[in-house]
Amino acid sequence: MSFKEELQKRTEEIEELLRRYLPKEEGFQKTVLEAVNYSVTAGGKRLRPILMRETYRMFGGSGPVIEPYMAAIEMIHTYSLVHDDLPAMDNDEYRRGRKTTHAVYGEAMGILAGDALLNLAFETAAQAFELDLSERTAKAMRILAEKAGIYGMIGGQVVDVESEGYAISREKLDFIYRLKTSALIESSMMIGAVLAGATEDEVERIERTARDVGLAFQIQDDILDVTSTLEVLGKPIHSDEKNEKTTYVTLEGLDKARQDVEEISKRALATLASLERKNPFLEELITMLITREK
Amino acid sequence: MSFKEELQKRTEEIEELLRRYLPKEEGFQKTVLEAVNYSVTAGGKRLRPILMRETYRMFGGSGPVIEPYMAAIEMIHTYSLVHDDLPAMDNDEYRRGRKTTHAVYGEAMGILAGDALLNLAFETAAQAFELDLSERTAKAMRILAEKAGIYGMIGGQVVDVESEGYAISREKLDFIYRLKTSALIESSMMIGAVLAGATEDEVERIERTARDVGLAFQIQDDILDVTSTLEVLGKPIHSDEKNEKTTYVTLEGLDKARQDVEEISKRALATLASLERKNPFLEELITMLITREK
Repeated sequence: MSFKEELQKRTEEIEELLRRYLPKEEGFQKTVLEAVNYSVTAGGKRLRPILMRETYRMFGGSGPVIEPYMAAIEMIHTYSLVHDDLPAMDNDEYRRGRKTTHAVYGEAMGILAGDALLNLAFETAAQAFELDLSERTAKAMRILAEKAGIYGMIGGQVVDVESEGYAISREKLDFIYRLKTSALIESSMMIGAVLAGATEDEVERIERTARDVGLAFQIQDDILDVTSTLEVLGKPIHSDEKNEKTTYVTLEGLDKARQDVEEISKRALATLASLERKNPFLEELITMLITREK
Repeated sequence: MSFKEELQKRTEEIEELLRRYLPKEEGFQKTVLEAVNYSVTAGGKRLRPILMRETYRMFGGSGPVIEPYMAAIEMIHTYSLVHDDLPAMDNDEYRRGRKTTHAVYGEAMGILAGDALLNLAFETAAQAFELDLSERTAKAMRILAEKAGIYGMIGGQVVDVESEGYAISREKLDFIYRLKTSALIESSMMIGAVLAGATEDEVERIERTARDVGLAFQIQDDILDVTSTLEVLGKPIHSDEKNEKTTYVTLEGLDKARQDVEEISKRALATLASLERKNPFLEELITMLITREK
């Protein structure tokens, strides 16, 4: 099987897994259940659960305890998009070619569906204790919560929202990228490692790898926003300019940005390679993410 | 010490405990940290953590494992108010005589501060596993998440929002009250019982007690909205009529509502009394909540 076919197969496995964890659309609260399912089934790369499972496999993990966490991380990622799209935030009517959740269900339901998803993520993750009541599961829960919180993703989101329309320093930009983009990737890979029993040193290297993957991914995003076309990218280009956003490209220039993506990518793969355990699929996936053209 | 002095003392203990769990207002994400602390320190009865600790004491609990959960339940309650007050929801500028969070920090920050608080609740609750990695702690985490979620508080909130301006059935009203008001009270008292090692039967009776406490509390709220004055209540009266809300009073009439509050209250206290373990302070607190005039 080629890498692309393998990736396709694993993405479908995640879709199947997510469906198992999504609520039935019934009862008085049917609308919010529909809105929750609408937002989660809107597609996407399912990158975070895939990275989680592959890191789990890399360290020899094989049991089902990873599954609630795979669903939970995708729910957290999805809620962040639902709230990000709200009129008071980015005010986006479309995402991935589909109407956004609040555009279909209204603003109040957009807020509540996001809340419901964040809550459901922890409800789902808590199920892992029924499969394995252990230090590992407790640590995974802590990582999940911390990396999504005010010192993780939400922290980055806040500073990002506050910075719109202002010129910001490289230091602040790094902070935003690390928290807004890297934190959930760190969470995904660290939880995979922790649940498989990786040592503290191994988890720390996985965290560094994930941080660089997120950073390179985000800078590549900035580059594509400038260099790609609507047709290739499948979403509006020059959106950063339109939103008066400081990006890595506006701060450092296109050439330096390209050079740094390459350097950070090499560093990510080198950190991963420094570990005794190997997962060739994971290495290829990371390479693909960083060098992607869309 | 009189009951009132005792309650005052315990409320102050909660304020002190909450402060320990709130974040420091520093770093790039300072604004959201301020907004989080602003909303939590806005006051309130601290009813849920008090009920949690008293139920814990009732079943002989004494260790610190309850503390992260006490902070977490108040954070969940607070986030629900922050989001409830948003322009797309109830659009309230004031709560308890202070400007609401979004009125001070803006709408985007109101959404993000609410998200931050919900996330922080689970981050905080997850700390309990460091104090006691056990079935009890795992069960408490499950209850915390479930009672706040789509089959708990958020579910009630959704149906409440959707019902505004429409006549609704008694069945739907009961559903809203049970989920929107009772669910977090059930959560508080059940977590107290579970962490103290109560049996399944005991936890089930505590759940029934809490459900009735929430229900009576909410109907009393409806009654006071009609019969009280702005001076006594400290918040606008006749707000339900203004918002075209179906309430227990509009559906059943004032006399029947008063009668039912009394009956439900008696049932709550009888269920509590059916348990071997006693906590006279808890009994008095519940009596006060139900018969309150403001």
